[in-house]
Amino acid sequence: MTQTHAKTDAATALIDGLVRAARSAQTALGSSSFATRQKALHEAAKIIRARTNDILASNQKDLAAAAQSGLTEAFIDRLTLTESRIEEMAVGLETIAAQPDPIGAELARWQRPNGLDITRQSTPLGVIGVIYESRPNVTVDAAGLCVLAGNAVILRGGSDSQHSASLLAEAMVEGLQAAGLPGAAVQIVNTTDRAAVGAMLAAVGGIDVIIPRGGKSLVERVQRDARVPVFAHLEGICHLYIDKDADPDKAKAITLNAKMRRTGICGAAETLLVHQQVAGDMLPAIAAELQQAGCVLRGDSAARRLVPDMQIAEDDDWRTEYLDAILSVRVVDSIDMAITHIATYGSGHTESIITEADDAAENFLQRVDSAIVMRNASTQFADGGEFGMGAEIGIATGRLHARGPVGAAQLTSFKYVVRGDGQIRS
Amino acid sequence: MTQTHAKTDAATALIDGLVRAARSAQTALGSSSFATRQKALHEAAKIIRARTNDILASNQKDLAAAAQSGLTEAFIDRLTLTESRIEEMAVGLETIAAQPDPIGAELARWQRPNGLDITRQSTPLGVIGVIYESRPNVTVDAAGLCVLAGNAVILRGGSDSQHSASLLAEAMVEGLQAAGLPGAAVQIVNTTDRAAVGAMLAAVGGIDVIIPRGGKSLVERVQRDARVPVFAHLEGICHLYIDKDADPDKAKAITLNAKMRRTGICGAAETLLVHQQVAGDMLPAIAAELQQAGCVLRGDSAARRLVPDMQIAEDDDWRTEYLDAILSVRVVDSIDMAITHIATYGSGHTESIITEADDAAENFLQRVDSAIVMRNASTQFADGGEFGMGAEIGIATGRLHARGPVGAAQLTSFKYVVRGDGQIRS
Repeated sequence: MTQTHAKTDAATALIDGLVRAARSAQTALGSSSFATRQKALHEAAKIIRARTNDILASNQKDLAAAAQSGLTEAFIDRLTLTESRIEEMAVGLETIAAQPDPIGAELARWQRPNGLDITRQSTPLGVIGVIYESRPNVTVDAAGLCVLAGNAVILRGGSDSQHSASLLAEAMVEGLQAAGLPGAAVQIVNTTDRAAVGAMLAAVGGIDVIIPRGGKSLVERVQRDARVPVFAHLEGICHLYIDKDADPDKAKAITLNAKMRRTGICGAAETLLVHQQVAGDMLPAIAAELQQAGCVLRGDSAARRLVPDMQIAEDDDWRTEYLDAILSVRVVDSIDMAITHIATYGSGHTESIITEADDAAENFLQRVDSAIVMRNASTQFADGGEFGMGAEIGIATGRLHARGPVGAAQLTSFKYVVRGDGQIRS
Repeated sequence: MTQTHAKTDAATALIDGLVRAARSAQTALGSSSFATRQKALHEAAKIIRARTNDILASNQKDLAAAAQSGLTEAFIDRLTLTESRIEEMAVGLETIAAQPDPIGAELARWQRPNGLDITRQSTPLGVIGVIYESRPNVTVDAAGLCVLAGNAVILRGGSDSQHSASLLAEAMVEGLQAAGLPGAAVQIVNTTDRAAVGAMLAAVGGIDVIIPRGGKSLVERVQRDARVPVFAHLEGICHLYIDKDADPDKAKAITLNAKMRRTGICGAAETLLVHQQVAGDMLPAIAAELQQAGCVLRGDSAARRLVPDMQIAEDDDWRTEYLDAILSVRVVDSIDMAITHIATYGSGHTESIITEADDAAENFLQRVDSAIVMRNASTQFADGGEFGMGAEIGIATGRLHARGPVGAAQLTSFKYVVRGDGQIRS
């Protein structure tokens, strides 16, 4: 193994670890209240103010090292922190916290002739990688914006600012913790190894977007390893969850349709989750109808106690897109267990809850992080035509630009048109 | 050079050629009227119907080859065309053409306290790469959707469908031409070389997004070479165009501000274009004020005839982001020449027209394909704070997801929430 390979492997392992922690932290951050996210920024601002002297001292270390490296005056200026620059960072966090909540907003809403009500609702982007130069203040600005929008962030600053940037990142982490949020939502890449940038770009599915923040040479270095983005879904492991307050007739009809209408399409249900309070009443009848329609069932032990002729579901079954007349079936203790199952085994495509209880429905619709979440409807409606978008080129499960059905309107970008009458900037 | 490198180089050269033709065709397609794009799809549908027998014959060639390769029944079924499947493709194009125009829509509009009126308006995405299996109908569906939204498309179908797919792509090309649009807006990758997929993914800046359309193994193959997408701008070569109907006071004040307020930011103007009808009246006074403020001017010969102490602008000057007190100056014959100059040398960041003529303004605002286009306002307003978005993490010039200022609201994704009362799909 060459030196370069060893470095690349080390960088990949480092980034993999950060990504795992970030994704887990993002799940909690993304479903936290706006007030909690605001509190995290206010607490971080307080901590930064309280530690002004420590931050200045660590910045002195960075500046001393930079002076020895013979860097330009402009570079030194950007690296330098002063009391007023530290105060600006704290005020910056408070200004970000004063913005309206960017997540949970209703971006569009329409009704279909069959009565389905469809909302497009803003959600966090996920995990954001920020690659920047030796400007310690970017640590705070970038992390503040990411956290407000419910995103975890992996920061990779210039090596000449490592002492000050680490201390500032630490303040952001403690701000999160003071608000009861996981500190791993803000992490800093503690290596000067340039292979870390390549490892971040390679973390497809782990990091959702990379933002290089700096001059042309930084952006060029990042873009050199970049590739054209992809709209796709790898698989559609769609879940149907029958809640304790499900209507039995809807549960049966929707399960049959979601699994058996067409088994080979990505919106077909692959796993049925049933709340234990209603499994005894509902599962045997639903299973009988499925089996009569030619569906093979594979259940966990609780499901097999109710329907003894089910096959045994192995762990792999929960991860399998059958695209065939096979359904895995699990009895769950609670809606939380259903949501956790979906987060663990799902592919982020389409999931549906069957329930008459509004609070359970909203809980599920808000917390399940898939491109399409449904209540009392068949997962087979996951289709551009059924959404009223016209033809579609596919379904995307990524979080960038197009998510869900990709029709003509999703194959567009936008520009900002600014009309003035002579305005100049002061 | 190894065999693999030779293949990769050949694939890169092939894709580069297609990309160049696609970008040029997209410029014309993207600014064509909706009726013209609709006509292209209707004409293609007619051609497909008229050539049913030829298409069936070419499909027979594909099927004969496939039969010898011992492919699965399902594979053969997807590859097979029949009269009714060909009619379905033609109807599909007509259905796509019946959708509302996805481009030019006002997505959002707001006013700033200083009177700036900001519209977020949908535009084509650009050049789309579609990678699919041996399903000839995808050729038509994907190209139809892309063309309706003003996008050029580069199609890379499965090698087992090459005869039928080529003939169908040819029908799309002739449909475009019958509507007076460039045929290169639909191109097909005529190679079975798998390196073509890698070359498409590597065409950053040439292809805007790749859509793999097919099963898990196809998507996996594409994703293997994918990287995390990047939000960035490489440089801000911002243009100011003083139109023949410009107000002289606004022209002077805005030019001074756009260049000299701060020279080191990405929204600073780097090139001034002046219409020849007003250059004599306006340029000397503006140049004098700029020079008095410490700005170095580099002009073309027409500009230097009016302001003899300007330096000579070389071709490289039009491509340079000075980030300094330097401005390149060119006298243009017409607004078309200004728009062409910007398309040739610009970086897609921010451009502003100074004019009192509404038709010239709209012409410029609609046809210039930059993240931010302005009328009678300083390019230095290109900033999330000035847009009323709060803090920003940067300005993006890519066409995916975030374009222009990237604030907290741009660091979000979305999901579709579907509320039903028992709907199943028929």
